[in-house]
Amino acid sequence: MRVISERNIKLTIAYDGTAYHGWQRQTNAISVQEVLEEALSRICKEPITIYGAGRTDSGVHASGQVANFKTTARIPVDRIPYAINSVTPRDLVVHKAEEVDQSFHARYSAKGKVYVYRIYNAEFPSPFWRNFALHYPLHLDVSAMRKACEYLIGTHDFSSFRAAGSEVKTSVRTVKRLEITHKEELITIIAEADGFLYNMVRIIVGALLDVGSGKLQPDDVQKILLAKDRGIASPTAPSHGLTLLKVHYSEVD
Amino acid sequence: MRVISERNIKLTIAYDGTAYHGWQRQTNAISVQEVLEEALSRICKEPITIYGAGRTDSGVHASGQVANFKTTARIPVDRIPYAINSVTPRDLVVHKAEEVDQSFHARYSAKGKVYVYRIYNAEFPSPFWRNFALHYPLHLDVSAMRKACEYLIGTHDFSSFRAAGSEVKTSVRTVKRLEITHKEELITIIAEADGFLYNMVRIIVGALLDVGSGKLQPDDVQKILLAKDRGIASPTAPSHGLTLLKVHYSEVD
Repeated sequence: MRVISERNIKLTIAYDGTAYHGWQRQTNAISVQEVLEEALSRICKEPITIYGAGRTDSGVHASGQVANFKTTARIPVDRIPYAINSVTPRDLVVHKAEEVDQSFHARYSAKGKVYVYRIYNAEFPSPFWRNFALHYPLHLDVSAMRKACEYLIGTHDFSSFRAAGSEVKTSVRTVKRLEITHKEELITIIAEADGFLYNMVRIIVGALLDVGSGKLQPDDVQKILLAKDRGIASPTAPSHGLTLLKVHYSEVD
Repeated sequence: MRVISERNIKLTIAYDGTAYHGWQRQTNAISVQEVLEEALSRICKEPITIYGAGRTDSGVHASGQVANFKTTARIPVDRIPYAINSVTPRDLVVHKAEEVDQSFHARYSAKGKVYVYRIYNAEFPSPFWRNFALHYPLHLDVSAMRKACEYLIGTHDFSSFRAAGSEVKTSVRTVKRLEITHKEELITIIAEADGFLYNMVRIIVGALLDVGSGKLQPDDVQKILLAKDRGIASPTAPSHGLTLLKVHYSEVD
């Protein structure tokens, strides 16, 4: 009996999430996972299941999503992006494929993630940013928002910034970076952590918007954090401003 | 008899041109002009004709298109953007309205225009730039492209860079600026002139792409210019990389 060796393939994927109901496969709505699995099953001529690093929500984008799948198909690894991109729509692009160790799992091997949240802060919306940034027409005090960020950086119990329904053992996470840049109309919030709870970035952004608009003081964000109660935090910011930038698999990359 | 005074209103408009068959009204295809005229006719309760500064082609975008129209409607000028934006799709946004002198005409009063052409230079396309930048997967020699630009700056007869079918008295134009910046995957060509012939920016970009890819030498662009013959120039670059940035109405703005 011949043993067919199975390869473990890591993909790096970018997508405009506007037309997708998130990463995760579901009935009656198109997902990124489904589009990729159907493309890969056609290419590999066997049923393929892929595992994504971040299960992005409906409307959330990714420029550096990572996923892996196992296959016995013999297609050269460097041809995989071309093969996938030739059958997927233009809003979803695989830009890298690598053969990795059998133990690699896009989600469980991840050591950290980087997200960006964009706010288009101008009186009128931009047709170019309409799907990629939250339009916020009122003045935002960016320096107050930066002060609020300082309370969130570090290792904390982020229960107040976790959406209901998430099932994880611990709500302690280490936020390594929470930085705001402001260039012309665009306010960009970069968030990096060893992991994020469900909707954590969008709830943090909701609180930062409340600080920027003067509804909250910067140190109110610390009070919210210490309360460990989602009920007192700000509303979740809309999904379309959020993009998954990068998934880290070592402490240094 | 009471004389109803007619105001002349200048609009500044941004649009994602992907879904439009250009600026100019035409039968059987949606145009920016038609969408704006229908919105304004509803708002002003009289038939409105608008005049655009640049008649952008199908797929071309604008962040600073200018148009004007005359109306007897009494709507306060600062309410006009809100009124238009409330009835137009999200890919078209009016961000300024001003009352101007009766003699102002968006096209004939223009003293200059600035366009940007974007090239996404990477092996794989970007889902985010797919409608706003030309995907060019091969290496481009940007310094050679910059050398070629030098031959085009200044006052020249641009007959070689004019699409057939354009009816203008003279093909002499003054290119004030032709600059290339390169940041990560994005190559950005800024072109400013007192006016552009039909398809002139896209034909210039076509020549610059031929220089960047090594098909032409930088000084071949001078030969093309001096030949005053569209037949020998490079192909026209695709429309979706082009955006009208700004229209100038004085020599100094």
